[in-house]
Amino acid sequence: MINVTLKDRSVIEVKEGTTPLAVAKALSEGLANAALAARINGLLADLAQPLAKDCALEILTFRDEDGKNVYRHTCAHILAQAVKNIYPDAKLAIGPATKTGFYYDFDFSAPITPADFPLIEKEMQSIVKADLPIERKVVSRRTALSQMRGLEEPYKIQLIEDVPKGEEVSFYKQGEFVDLCRGPHLTRTGRVKFFKLIQATGAYWKGSEKNKMLTRIYGTCFEKKSELAEYLELLEEAKRRDHNKLGREMGFFMTDENIGQGLPLLMPKGAKLFQILQRFVEDEEEKRGYILTKTPSMAKSDLYKISGHWSHYRDKMFVIGEGGGEQFALRPMTCPFQYMIYKSGLKSYRDLPVRYNETSPLFRKEASGEMHGLIRVRQFHLSDGHVICTPAQLEEEFKGCFELSRYFLRCLGLDREVTYRFSKWDPSNREKYIGKPEEWEAAEALMKSILDGMGIEYVTAVGEAAFYGPKLDVQITNVYGKEDTLMTIQVDMYLSEKFDMWFVDDHGEKKRPYIIHRSAFGCYERVMAILIEKYAGALPLWLSPVQVRIMPITDRTSEAAKSINAQLSVHGIRGEVDGRNEKIGYKIREAQLEKIPYMLIVGDKEVETGAIAVRSRGAGDLGSTDITSFIEKISKEIASKLSEI
Amino acid sequence: MINVTLKDRSVIEVKEGTTPLAVAKALSEGLANAALAARINGLLADLAQPLAKDCALEILTFRDEDGKNVYRHTCAHILAQAVKNIYPDAKLAIGPATKTGFYYDFDFSAPITPADFPLIEKEMQSIVKADLPIERKVVSRRTALSQMRGLEEPYKIQLIEDVPKGEEVSFYKQGEFVDLCRGPHLTRTGRVKFFKLIQATGAYWKGSEKNKMLTRIYGTCFEKKSELAEYLELLEEAKRRDHNKLGREMGFFMTDENIGQGLPLLMPKGAKLFQILQRFVEDEEEKRGYILTKTPSMAKSDLYKISGHWSHYRDKMFVIGEGGGEQFALRPMTCPFQYMIYKSGLKSYRDLPVRYNETSPLFRKEASGEMHGLIRVRQFHLSDGHVICTPAQLEEEFKGCFELSRYFLRCLGLDREVTYRFSKWDPSNREKYIGKPEEWEAAEALMKSILDGMGIEYVTAVGEAAFYGPKLDVQITNVYGKEDTLMTIQVDMYLSEKFDMWFVDDHGEKKRPYIIHRSAFGCYERVMAILIEKYAGALPLWLSPVQVRIMPITDRTSEAAKSINAQLSVHGIRGEVDGRNEKIGYKIREAQLEKIPYMLIVGDKEVETGAIAVRSRGAGDLGSTDITSFIEKISKEIASKLSEI
Repeated sequence: MINVTLKDRSVIEVKEGTTPLAVAKALSEGLANAALAARINGLLADLAQPLAKDCALEILTFRDEDGKNVYRHTCAHILAQAVKNIYPDAKLAIGPATKTGFYYDFDFSAPITPADFPLIEKEMQSIVKADLPIERKVVSRRTALSQMRGLEEPYKIQLIEDVPKGEEVSFYKQGEFVDLCRGPHLTRTGRVKFFKLIQATGAYWKGSEKNKMLTRIYGTCFEKKSELAEYLELLEEAKRRDHNKLGREMGFFMTDENIGQGLPLLMPKGAKLFQILQRFVEDEEEKRGYILTKTPSMAKSDLYKISGHWSHYRDKMFVIGEGGGEQFALRPMTCPFQYMIYKSGLKSYRDLPVRYNETSPLFRKEASGEMHGLIRVRQFHLSDGHVICTPAQLEEEFKGCFELSRYFLRCLGLDREVTYRFSKWDPSNREKYIGKPEEWEAAEALMKSILDGMGIEYVTAVGEAAFYGPKLDVQITNVYGKEDTLMTIQVDMYLSEKFDMWFVDDHGEKKRPYIIHRSAFGCYERVMAILIEKYAGALPLWLSPVQVRIMPITDRTSEAAKSINAQLSVHGIRGEVDGRNEKIGYKIREAQLEKIPYMLIVGDKEVETGAIAVRSRGAGDLGSTDITSFIEKISKEIASKLSEI
Repeated sequence: MINVTLKDRSVIEVKEGTTPLAVAKALSEGLANAALAARINGLLADLAQPLAKDCALEILTFRDEDGKNVYRHTCAHILAQAVKNIYPDAKLAIGPATKTGFYYDFDFSAPITPADFPLIEKEMQSIVKADLPIERKVVSRRTALSQMRGLEEPYKIQLIEDVPKGEEVSFYKQGEFVDLCRGPHLTRTGRVKFFKLIQATGAYWKGSEKNKMLTRIYGTCFEKKSELAEYLELLEEAKRRDHNKLGREMGFFMTDENIGQGLPLLMPKGAKLFQILQRFVEDEEEKRGYILTKTPSMAKSDLYKISGHWSHYRDKMFVIGEGGGEQFALRPMTCPFQYMIYKSGLKSYRDLPVRYNETSPLFRKEASGEMHGLIRVRQFHLSDGHVICTPAQLEEEFKGCFELSRYFLRCLGLDREVTYRFSKWDPSNREKYIGKPEEWEAAEALMKSILDGMGIEYVTAVGEAAFYGPKLDVQITNVYGKEDTLMTIQVDMYLSEKFDMWFVDDHGEKKRPYIIHRSAFGCYERVMAILIEKYAGALPLWLSPVQVRIMPITDRTSEAAKSINAQLSVHGIRGEVDGRNEKIGYKIREAQLEKIPYMLIVGDKEVETGAIAVRSRGAGDLGSTDITSFIEKISKEIASKLSEI
């Protein structure tokens, strides 16, 4: 007999070799029905895995993140089995669970589109209906290789070849279908209830554009029909808000194949939004003691050799002059440029802190498969900056950076949407970083104490640090649930040494300053994408490229419309006149589609009485008012930076 | 006997073979004394050139631009002779006259610096004193080659090799010294009066960085001592104003050898000036119906193949990916990017004109010898834009562009400093341009009629057009008298075809639009350089990065100083507090050196009475006033954009 410690700390005695499923059954029929996988001594396992000795056991259901993942991973296998049944020459790559479902990468001999999904889904239904048992089998690397060679699965063969020689690998089998897989899985295919295939995209094998482009089929599955329906509805809503669709339709940005992927062109509406955001950031930062720089977008390789980018980041940089002669790279960050400005004059402790900011164009050589709308691009603009301070000022300055970014996020209505991540180095991957382990430990301890002192709730992520220091990442999730880093605040103890930066302390001695790498709100393009998605294109009044559209009903009132626009302009309100020879209903519908916050309708009656008829995109007809009251009302709204009107 | 027509149209009869000098003597002794060279039937000639037949003759003196050039060119030969006397192994390259003097390029075996100038000048004095006759000799190309091989002058040999075979070349000889030269020259070395060597710089042989770097010695010379003295004084003043010196000293910009030549870093003062200018331009253009774009700094080579830059401009572009894979280039201009935005939607004649503008970072691969401060750089920002209009709108829109740039120049105080140049294509160099001769003629005729219609005074420059069309260049001269193009307005009839751009006219037919390439005031960096030089760093109030510096006399009044600064800030006035623990005299001297327009001094007395003591950088002590009056006064000054206070 062995002792099994359950989640509630109670201990039960069972026979050696009892399975987690049997334990669940013994506890309650309900638990056994809900059970999807187990966690034995902290490690995920199949429900059929025999318990060999005393252990801690947790039965996982769909309510557990890991239980849900196993459920969905099994659904990915069902997808793969269905695909192989229908397209026997399709080759299998990998098929994990994701935050919102699962995907499987295939190498098809002919292209697959969502039009093929119904057929595949039907085959998946049959597999579920057949309720095949799912069995795990552990074999030697050699056996695995010979088996996959027999099945002619080149990607699986590559995966096994990556396993160290002499080790074992596991397979999962359901009916005739066998897949190389670490597991765990459900016990039977019939356990999977409600699923749906969502999307087919291209994806490079192993994520590298040097490899073949495979077809990735995304799907999702749930235990309850209502949950699936709810998710699909959310997805529809997400598609409606997707900045990569809506942002193009509304004329915020475009791309062009002659210019290239990941190089968006901001159209007048997008460029105006950029200008509004840039002025807002630069003005607020000026109030908080920041000083501007404007530094070049490229530099000789010499600079990146000092900063370490040449050896740690070169793959991600666009390099000029590889054929010989002078060699330059487009800059992936602003740091070394602002350091050169710092170094240009002798600094005393009295000059510190120095707070530099720049609306900085940056370039990163993202792989072609990774680009997405305004979220992941090859050229972007970072509200970038560095605070250079004495050690004694570090905590205060870090707080200042944090508060500033909180302020910006609040003004954009994003403060409740972000989460925080404390990104540390990975000591098992030392060649990725500069500096010594004890320095990393000191820097991370210092940063932890600052974060804890500020009472920020954060998760910890090992291996996500910059190569020169730990950082606080502000994370945001897009409409599809994909998490991205919006901005970071980084503590840096290394680069001041690499760049030989000094200040003279109050004893006249030369000391190394600390550097905080920080951003107001991250990359403008990404912020614009998030804003378009959050507001479904109906940007808050203060951010709207056009705030008021004035519509004369007839030619007779077009002069009055122009005069109203001139009055708005005097008060810094962005108006425009729709003077086209169109019916007023048509003009209103167009303004509504363009999500213009306010519409002013000017007819003969309005001109006569000196009144204006006001509509808002949200509330519709707001009745009549005079121009002075209207200007007063919306000036207040603009100043308040209200997110919704 | 032959008939010689003089400049005043009178005709005199002289013997065949009479020299221009003899004619001058016959006319008046004064003219003969002042004579430097002749123009015979429009062609420059030596005074000793015999007149062979009936001709038009002009005697040139120092008051004629060409006379002055001959004078200075002879001085360049005297410099070369002196150099060869002192450094017999120096090799001669070329030595022309310039707008302000002359230079000569040498290949020295050991470096030469201004410290060597006194010795060389002394030798030049001896040559002048010896009053050597200067003789022209015409020889065959073959004889010339053998002579220069004998003298071991490799650069002269190359120059002769460039002459078509069978042609003749001319030499000029003064004493033992012989130089390959087209001429003309003065008759004797003694004719050169007052000269001075100015500077030694590097210069590539034939201006190409693929060739050896030679030493260029600059000098100048005048007929009158007072003229030389005046010029040297101007030069001193120019050095004092030189933005490349002053702009660095005052902290507007810096460069760094690790980043590279021609890639200036704008420091806080320069970056602030940039921001002020950018907002000013973008706001004014918005008022005039321009809409913003913000487009990428790079594009695939595909785009430049359409635009023609790949075949006509590639040498000047930074190319990425020459080693293979995707090939990009940093953009040298904004045109094709804005065209893509134009093309993104169907345009009706009702939508035209469309006026795009962008504060656009651009990149040009200038040769390393050509870079200069902020004037000639590899990355710069152009206030760039394109007006796309119907043929009927072209004239009106061109005028609008011209008036807008006049307005900007006036606000900057530069409107009286510019001249206009009508840059045409060069029909004898057709491969440099796209399009057909008749199209060029039509475009140039159209542009001429617009320019003449506007009554603009301009010079014509053949061969200075863009490869796609003629342009109006706005020219400005820097402190050293070097002329550069500040901005251009270009009429373009080709690119709309290359990019397949359309609009639908009022009959529903597709038509090609016209394009005007235009700039508000050119490149920001160049404008900043010109402003620094014009104002010797004391920028007009409205452009000053810091407009008011507030100086508490003691710690007791520092809070009052901060409160004054806060009040300035509310009114949009850029103030800062000098709260350092320094004597007030020291603070004033520093502010004066930094050319801060206004200084406010706050002592106990001021706090008590609520008054402030005002100083201006120009007028010194302005007495006491209250803060409200001060704000009112300088707000008016700022709004007026007065160039001097």
